Amino acid sequence: MAKKPSIPKGTRDFSPTEIAKRDYIFEIVKKHFRTFGFQPIETPAFENSETLMGKYGDEGDRLIFKILNSGDFMSKVDDATYGSKNSSALTSKISEKALRYDLTVPFARYVVMHQNEIEFPFKRYQIQPVWRADRPQKGRFREFYQCDADVVGANSLLQEVELIQLYDAVFADLKLEGVTIKLNNRKILAGIAEIIGAQNNLVNFTVALDKLDKIGVEGVKKEMLAKGMSEQAIAKARPLFELSGTNAEQLNTLDNLLSDSGEGSKGVEELRFIINTIDDLGLQSAKLEIDVTLARGLNYYTGAILEVAAPEGVDMGSIGGGGRYDDLTGIFGLKDVSGVGISFGLDRIYLVLEELGLFPETLDKTLDVLCINFGEKESMAALKLVTLLRYKGVKADVYPSKAKMQKQMKYANNRNIPYVILIGENEMNHKTFVVKDMASGEQKSYGLAQIQDFIKTL
Amino acid sequence: MAKKPSIPKGTRDFSPTEIAKRDYIFEIVKKHFRTFGFQPIETPAFENSETLMGKYGDEGDRLIFKILNSGDFMSKVDDATYGSKNSSALTSKISEKALRYDLTVPFARYVVMHQNEIEFPFKRYQIQPVWRADRPQKGRFREFYQCDADVVGANSLLQEVELIQLYDAVFADLKLEGVTIKLNNRKILAGIAEIIGAQNNLVNFTVALDKLDKIGVEGVKKEMLAKGMSEQAIAKARPLFELSGTNAEQLNTLDNLLSDSGEGSKGVEELRFIINTIDDLGLQSAKLEIDVTLARGLNYYTGAILEVAAPEGVDMGSIGGGGRYDDLTGIFGLKDVSGVGISFGLDRIYLVLEELGLFPETLDKTLDVLCINFGEKESMAALKLVTLLRYKGVKADVYPSKAKMQKQMKYANNRNIPYVILIGENEMNHKTFVVKDMASGEQKSYGLAQIQDFIKTL
Repeated sequence: MAKKPSIPKGTRDFSPTEIAKRDYIFEIVKKHFRTFGFQPIETPAFENSETLMGKYGDEGDRLIFKILNSGDFMSKVDDATYGSKNSSALTSKISEKALRYDLTVPFARYVVMHQNEIEFPFKRYQIQPVWRADRPQKGRFREFYQCDADVVGANSLLQEVELIQLYDAVFADLKLEGVTIKLNNRKILAGIAEIIGAQNNLVNFTVALDKLDKIGVEGVKKEMLAKGMSEQAIAKARPLFELSGTNAEQLNTLDNLLSDSGEGSKGVEELRFIINTIDDLGLQSAKLEIDVTLARGLNYYTGAILEVAAPEGVDMGSIGGGGRYDDLTGIFGLKDVSGVGISFGLDRIYLVLEELGLFPETLDKTLDVLCINFGEKESMAALKLVTLLRYKGVKADVYPSKAKMQKQMKYANNRNIPYVILIGENEMNHKTFVVKDMASGEQKSYGLAQIQDFIKTL
Repeated sequence: MAKKPSIPKGTRDFSPTEIAKRDYIFEIVKKHFRTFGFQPIETPAFENSETLMGKYGDEGDRLIFKILNSGDFMSKVDDATYGSKNSSALTSKISEKALRYDLTVPFARYVVMHQNEIEFPFKRYQIQPVWRADRPQKGRFREFYQCDADVVGANSLLQEVELIQLYDAVFADLKLEGVTIKLNNRKILAGIAEIIGAQNNLVNFTVALDKLDKIGVEGVKKEMLAKGMSEQAIAKARPLFELSGTNAEQLNTLDNLLSDSGEGSKGVEELRFIINTIDDLGLQSAKLEIDVTLARGLNYYTGAILEVAAPEGVDMGSIGGGGRYDDLTGIFGLKDVSGVGISFGLDRIYLVLEELGLFPETLDKTLDVLCINFGEKESMAALKLVTLLRYKGVKADVYPSKAKMQKQMKYANNRNIPYVILIGENEMNHKTFVVKDMASGEQKSYGLAQIQDFIKTL
């Protein structure tokens, strides 16, 4: 019975300090979501299995946590299936619900189910945990929050512009300077593949191109050759590998390279509109950069592709990403609803802020004032004062028992409480209270009628 | 594929309006949790099955949602167990994790696991969903939020006093006047059972007594007789059925009734301390009442028992409850840690506020300003203005496409947006914008340099 308790691997408890830091990020993100006109929704932790299965590929299907049916679930399994003892055949017989794997599919399901109540265009945000039966490793968890903002039912490129502004607004507010927002367009990747004759090899082409950073030009060429692209095709793509200069210069290079591809030219045009509009509006602290190697789940996106890189010098993958996908709700039978969205990588943003020391120090302050407990009568006087302080919004407490003074002071110290209040017999008689500043050690006496003066010092 | 999507029974989607209302409640509750010195923790959605199973009785065990193991889960089932095709025998072989059923057991597990990092007394709050495979019905869901505040490691009755103040502070802030906080003590119930010679029938005695409201004195007597209590015993308990008058008068009656029971007298003493202290401190709007029929999961509580009733005239069960339990963490091997806590019934509080029209009207305002889109050039000017407004914290948006004026105005109407901004060619030339007040229909023109004047009107 009294076995040492534990939690499932890949899951986490969050302590008060950790929650204060996470909430700091969430509150800033939500504030900007709201000023940008996004509205919150929430969906259930589990969905009907048929809503989730088949939406994330075979690997995704395996990583979805399934919930066992209640009651005598085995009685509904036919003998033939039972006889096979085949886990995957049995799963669909004994499990009808599964934990949310991401927020996008439940959102698509939400839009279809509530299409008659929703005013389109619909800008929604959603911040909820998701669960994946992934192998846990450093920075990868089986339970983690996703934090998404999407617009559905709006085709205008102004949405892409606003999402870039939104990233900038959030990271500026978090004081996280030097983030780079990388921008690409699926149509450009498709255009290049068309030009070099690799239309039917688009995924392999982009997967290889995506590795340019890590394996260099020669590595990419080698991989493209291995994946069946010709020397000639790769030579044609050469300008891509050497793309450099300002965004405007890169746009010109791409324009020339893709002039024979209708789709490619459209991609360049879209990219140019977004870049020029952002140039015109200005960003607070982020940098916007074209990155034609950016692919991110290519099969999903149909237009813009976005990714946010942490400031240089911080060893962290992307801290956000998104893009446009033209058929969000088609899987649930509602056609022609375009979506574009971004997400914030909470866990990574947390680590970056921690590494750079960007969390405000005040987050640690869980209590403004602790009243020392000198005994039954004194603690009643203390509780009266604390009641007034709380009423004024001050985070205040009375130590719950008449413990040794040293123990109570140690408690205040360990909890980083800035002020300790002392009300002994003398103070009770004189209707006063003594405030000790824990940092400086200074003590000051106030009359009970001057409580407001004390509150002002906080 | 395109089957009409649905969600599992007993679960809910939350729309932006519902979330605004829920958040309104949560934010007020959290504000007071914090001023009372409580700190937030969060625990994973699923726990190891052994953490949860056996903690909620047989019925609870059945209502816990179990998660199917990943991979080839059946391969680990031995042939004998498999041959039985017995669902309950198989469950523990194919499932090692289960969804959180309440917040109390995970909290006890948290305290034991983190005992070396925690400063005791530890006041924690926790607001997270829980899941129960209950039969869904009106007001009962399979996924719902619990909202708990508990103190562990403090034996003082000041905790009970503070928890009553906390209820009062929250309901006063929610403008929910006329709630009654009912107070009882397990020791009083045990004392009465002792006096009437029903010590070994305590649960049946209290279950019957708990029904006094519904089935009246005669009904209660009948049930007690049926459960094996004697006429004589029931006659002795008679003063209980007729308990009336002020709290002080009831305390005197109880004192007399229980003078021969050590435990009962202790209970009266505790009750008296709490009642007197609250009398002394005063409450903002709640009423505190002794209710000796209150039992609430008796086997759990060891001291005070609390329950909050909605204002008279509102047909709703309790909207909160709690009490003291002396051995919270014993189930995980940490002895002698006393706990006392309360919870808020979010879904019911929501319904009560809705019924009484107590949600602020401003919650509906998801956007302060919508800029009409008159075309590409004009929408750029609108986006510039909107960018400035957002930067100042105004919730603002540009309609994403050049739709018909009528359609855009209808959208603003449907979304309850109070102001619409018009920037046409004329306004662009004169560097102005026109604000239309959607309620009055009035229009006013501002220079772009006077944007601050407009913001002041919001």
